[in-house]
Amino acid sequence: MNNDRKGGFTLPGEAGYEELTLKMAEKWGADVIRDSDGTKLSPRIVEAGYRIYSTICIIREHNAFAQAHPDAQQQTFLSSDPKVAVGETLSISPLEGYFEEQFQLNDSPDAMPYWQVWDRTAGRLVDPSAWTWADGRVTVNACVPYHRYTVSFLAWRIWEEINMYNHTTNHWTSEHLRQLDPRHPLAWEYLQGWLKNWCEANPETNVVRLTSLFYNFVWIFGSDLRRRTRFVDWASYDFTVSPAALRAFEAAYGYALTAEDFICQGRLQATHRPPTAHKRDYMDFIQRFVAEKARTLVEIIHSYGKEAYVFYDDSWVGMEPYGKYFASIGFDGLIKCVFSGFECRLCAGADVPVHELRFHPYLFPVGLGGAPTFMEGGHPERDAIAYWLHVRRALARQSVDRIGLGGYLHLTIGQDAFNDAIEQMGVVFRRLKALHAAEKPAELPVTVAVLHTWGALRSWTLSGHFHETDGNILIHINEALSGLPVRVKFVSFEDVKQGALRDADVLINAGRMGDAWSGGDAWRDADLVAAVTRFVWEGGSLIGAGEPSAAPGGDTRFALAHVLGVDRDDGAYACHGAWAYEVEEKAPFLIADEALAVTSGIRLTAPDVQVLRDADGTPTLTLRTFGKGKAVYLGGFAYSPRAARMLLETLLYLTGADGRSAGLTDDAQAECAWFPGQRTLVVMNSADAPATVNVALPGGTERVALAAHETVFRQVP
Amino acid sequence: MNNDRKGGFTLPGEAGYEELTLKMAEKWGADVIRDSDGTKLSPRIVEAGYRIYSTICIIREHNAFAQAHPDAQQQTFLSSDPKVAVGETLSISPLEGYFEEQFQLNDSPDAMPYWQVWDRTAGRLVDPSAWTWADGRVTVNACVPYHRYTVSFLAWRIWEEINMYNHTTNHWTSEHLRQLDPRHPLAWEYLQGWLKNWCEANPETNVVRLTSLFYNFVWIFGSDLRRRTRFVDWASYDFTVSPAALRAFEAAYGYALTAEDFICQGRLQATHRPPTAHKRDYMDFIQRFVAEKARTLVEIIHSYGKEAYVFYDDSWVGMEPYGKYFASIGFDGLIKCVFSGFECRLCAGADVPVHELRFHPYLFPVGLGGAPTFMEGGHPERDAIAYWLHVRRALARQSVDRIGLGGYLHLTIGQDAFNDAIEQMGVVFRRLKALHAAEKPAELPVTVAVLHTWGALRSWTLSGHFHETDGNILIHINEALSGLPVRVKFVSFEDVKQGALRDADVLINAGRMGDAWSGGDAWRDADLVAAVTRFVWEGGSLIGAGEPSAAPGGDTRFALAHVLGVDRDDGAYACHGAWAYEVEEKAPFLIADEALAVTSGIRLTAPDVQVLRDADGTPTLTLRTFGKGKAVYLGGFAYSPRAARMLLETLLYLTGADGRSAGLTDDAQAECAWFPGQRTLVVMNSADAPATVNVALPGGTERVALAAHETVFRQVP
Repeated sequence: MNNDRKGGFTLPGEAGYEELTLKMAEKWGADVIRDSDGTKLSPRIVEAGYRIYSTICIIREHNAFAQAHPDAQQQTFLSSDPKVAVGETLSISPLEGYFEEQFQLNDSPDAMPYWQVWDRTAGRLVDPSAWTWADGRVTVNACVPYHRYTVSFLAWRIWEEINMYNHTTNHWTSEHLRQLDPRHPLAWEYLQGWLKNWCEANPETNVVRLTSLFYNFVWIFGSDLRRRTRFVDWASYDFTVSPAALRAFEAAYGYALTAEDFICQGRLQATHRPPTAHKRDYMDFIQRFVAEKARTLVEIIHSYGKEAYVFYDDSWVGMEPYGKYFASIGFDGLIKCVFSGFECRLCAGADVPVHELRFHPYLFPVGLGGAPTFMEGGHPERDAIAYWLHVRRALARQSVDRIGLGGYLHLTIGQDAFNDAIEQMGVVFRRLKALHAAEKPAELPVTVAVLHTWGALRSWTLSGHFHETDGNILIHINEALSGLPVRVKFVSFEDVKQGALRDADVLINAGRMGDAWSGGDAWRDADLVAAVTRFVWEGGSLIGAGEPSAAPGGDTRFALAHVLGVDRDDGAYACHGAWAYEVEEKAPFLIADEALAVTSGIRLTAPDVQVLRDADGTPTLTLRTFGKGKAVYLGGFAYSPRAARMLLETLLYLTGADGRSAGLTDDAQAECAWFPGQRTLVVMNSADAPATVNVALPGGTERVALAAHETVFRQVP
Repeated sequence: MNNDRKGGFTLPGEAGYEELTLKMAEKWGADVIRDSDGTKLSPRIVEAGYRIYSTICIIREHNAFAQAHPDAQQQTFLSSDPKVAVGETLSISPLEGYFEEQFQLNDSPDAMPYWQVWDRTAGRLVDPSAWTWADGRVTVNACVPYHRYTVSFLAWRIWEEINMYNHTTNHWTSEHLRQLDPRHPLAWEYLQGWLKNWCEANPETNVVRLTSLFYNFVWIFGSDLRRRTRFVDWASYDFTVSPAALRAFEAAYGYALTAEDFICQGRLQATHRPPTAHKRDYMDFIQRFVAEKARTLVEIIHSYGKEAYVFYDDSWVGMEPYGKYFASIGFDGLIKCVFSGFECRLCAGADVPVHELRFHPYLFPVGLGGAPTFMEGGHPERDAIAYWLHVRRALARQSVDRIGLGGYLHLTIGQDAFNDAIEQMGVVFRRLKALHAAEKPAELPVTVAVLHTWGALRSWTLSGHFHETDGNILIHINEALSGLPVRVKFVSFEDVKQGALRDADVLINAGRMGDAWSGGDAWRDADLVAAVTRFVWEGGSLIGAGEPSAAPGGDTRFALAHVLGVDRDDGAYACHGAWAYEVEEKAPFLIADEALAVTSGIRLTAPDVQVLRDADGTPTLTLRTFGKGKAVYLGGFAYSPRAARMLLETLLYLTGADGRSAGLTDDAQAECAWFPGQRTLVVMNSADAPATVNVALPGGTERVALAAHETVFRQVP
């Protein structure tokens, strides 16, 4: 029998709290002790017999080198705010409105050729002969009066963004840390040497925990506190750019990128929007570069007999775990901090030997948005349990190898409720892990294909955490799927055209017109539309949510309106009568009304659509038979246990699968996992109150009583 | 002194109710008696000394001719509903889903060349060799599987639409009336002869009241009662088409129109959407044709010593009173039925000798939407007063020559409240008319230019009545403007580029992205944007409502975002921080909160925008200084007396005009008109309760007590 009290747990140790460190390691069953940003381990901790993770941020904390070689720092393209020409010349101070502690203009001879001036009113690039750069200002000559102009330019990023965030949010006062660009030859030489020295100086370290690689996600601060965050995109590539990168790209791809490929009319190319072909090329270019450089670092680490784990956050750009080159890096482990189930699946499914979750809350006085956590007014145990309820159901579907925490361990002093809760989570985690080690839990014979622009590259995540993307329907759907007993895959539009629906039972497309999740102009592709149409006609199912398959230009707003039986009126139907409908009295599956929402303008396009719910005269949930298949439309979908249950029952209804084959509770607040080879049923109560749940299994029904939030492991005879 | 008890009133007489007719003519001060659709005048009425209007619908009531010459009937293009090809051939019955009593396929050799088959999935016209027409079905060969196909075809319209509406709504059972196309040479010969005969047979008629001309607005019925109205557009041109018209167009314009110019991917070209260049040409072509034919009819009528008035409704297409050719027709009068103030202004401003309003309710058992009027459960006096409150304020700004009613006079029996209300309205109307005869009321030195696609052609109206277009912000604004003491003009985008803002003080653009009122792609024109930018920068004012200047493709969604200081996030700003704001505690003008609404996604684009109101975190009313000018953004605007007052005060604030110069009440429910030459102040109470109102005038303040709804005419010393 496995030991469910110890192992697979990473504890943040803290010098000065050696007793506490060892006590908590015992309580939580840790086998690993790590340091954190802001904490150190002392010899007594390091020598206590635990494996040791040491955190390094490879591109940061080299200020001396950065000051000696300022051209080795990282850069980005920025655009000045548009300025209206009211005469024939216009003077622009490019960095105005940007945080002067984050950026510094790069007007080196290397950079200037990449600067651009745009007439944004006319959408026209201004000829370089028509503007000059002097005394910190661009002067545009021969302006068209009353047109708006912008300057696109390169800027050094002189403050590493995570450090900048911690300073500005938590009022740190230490030196601003800079960041090096590994593309700079001297920097790269330096970083390799630095890593070798580090490995030599830290013989006790077993695992180098890279936090993380080279390029931070994009985070652009403004000078005005009323718009401190000008732009933040957890998955965009702007911070990888430099003249050297642009030259290397041109050499490799045979064409040159310009500032506008990044600036994109001032909007930048956010991950939530479909990328241009140029951006796709550039991403591939960067991914290859990041993988190549990371592989070198991993080889250095391995050469010292250490393992290399990577923390998937912060400077992660270009190392997507589902990217083409990730496996080639040779990481020994992937660590993901998790608030949500989808993050657990993201980590668990990556092609890497060890998968580790870092639970929330982080051991820090304040949490999300500056709310109190480990300080007066905070309830860390409530936070921990809330996140756990999301993570647990995903862990029940697909286990990981390790869990852990991070931060200042001394903050746990006196937090008995929190400490006990983490202890219990450790026990449940270890029991689930042991069950998974023997077999996968029973799954419905249902494969769900989630269709969006990025496909597998952005499996499970949109970009960033749930709370950063929760305005998108899809993250709610992904979160629901993360704990359902179905197979889930993420496919791109190109994948669909290449036949990716062959093994799919249900296709999901959920987003807003023009975003990467709905797909935007991809839906102008007749082959794609025909492929999905055929899929449903021949018996597949389609779930569309929000503005699925929406694109301008066609005869319908939703390219799949003829399948769904609904379309969105954005004004084009002002004179057209809609099909009248009555709301069905009975629905073939549970409806979580609170999860639905109105997408404005939704109307039926066919008389044979069943409206299961509406609000304010607008259908919010519809069902339609199309050929041998079916289509469901959801105006909205907000994750909750009941919403997940609605999705499960919808999938059962659409596919005709027998829910008992994977275990089916009679309570939307309780989910289960069934391990048939081990005759073990796991039942999880999400409710804040006790519940008694009947679970239908292939052989009969089990009745299980659960305390609030409890996980019961039941041996079924 | 004018007689305010008699004159300028058109009474619907009714044979069989001669006493009543003469009694009501006396009570309401009628000088004209008319017949109506469904009523006749008897000799006793005709000979009672009143002028006589006789209603004729020139293209209707010629069923014998139509049956003898079915090819002289009117037509339209229709598109079959899209059908998915699941194999390589597809069979389509084109008229399926259309009301078979309204339409009949035209598969004559004349018509077939205009038929088209479209692959709507690919957006591709199918080569005529790839489809066949036989046995009432189009067979498409060599389909692309899972693409959708439509057939565009010509259909005869075999039931005049107003007659069809009356039959289907009011359960009429008489013969279905057909309609003739005056473009058909035989029909045109016949109609001229018929009109001559009619004039000869009706010597007692003084005024031929044409209801109306040739081509009805577009009204397409479906076969399924759940979508009876498939399409209705009060101002579109589809019902003017025929192979003969298309050939004549090609000869005149040098290029051929196709079915797709009308079908437009199945959406048809609704008036609420910006027209294609082809549609503009076609409208001009039809307007010239309608004017030419109408002029001939008017000349016939004049040759019999009669006058020709035209009722502006029903078969009015091509005779827009603000169109280029309207005045050339030579009508003696224009009659407009009015629910609203904007319709009053539309009529009053037309270039024609006599302007007459037909008040509502129509003397008919049921009114709008089948609600009871002159029957049990109805309150005709309430309806009449409600419409009057809208009309009166417009009449106070710009008088007409006549008012009147229509319908079955006997329904007034026992309706004393209604009869008294109409009598009172007649008195007020005559007193206003007399004041206007001497001078225009005082006006603020403010010219408002309402900017949209159609410009002056669609002055005041969008298309149809208020209740048919009340989903559009602009009709609410037009309605408010119709009673304000400002000069109003309607300008097109082309007008603006030609300098139409030179005499404007305030520019209004109000609509939804892509509609004709906001303007759609017109805003991609840099010259237009620059012209408006300059206008405001140099001191003009801009009021944008809803999604003003919105178009896809630019760097902002609103082309005037840089002026307004707000833009709409349709997802493109997902990663961009917005400017934080606080709502101003004091506003420089009255805010009618109930008139505002959220346009989703509105966000500030500049820090110097004053937010006067917001809702759900979205600004709904903002104010910004731009150069010497100002810009106001309204998320919504719903007409009410208070909303009109808000608009007035906004205009006063923006322009700095002194409200007293035109008279300014201290009560949003009361408006006034000031006739300085006659020292007469007219004060109108819109409230259902008495009010005492102070009116600021150039020379001092008048205090006026009013009963509910009362109009007071005050002589000011």
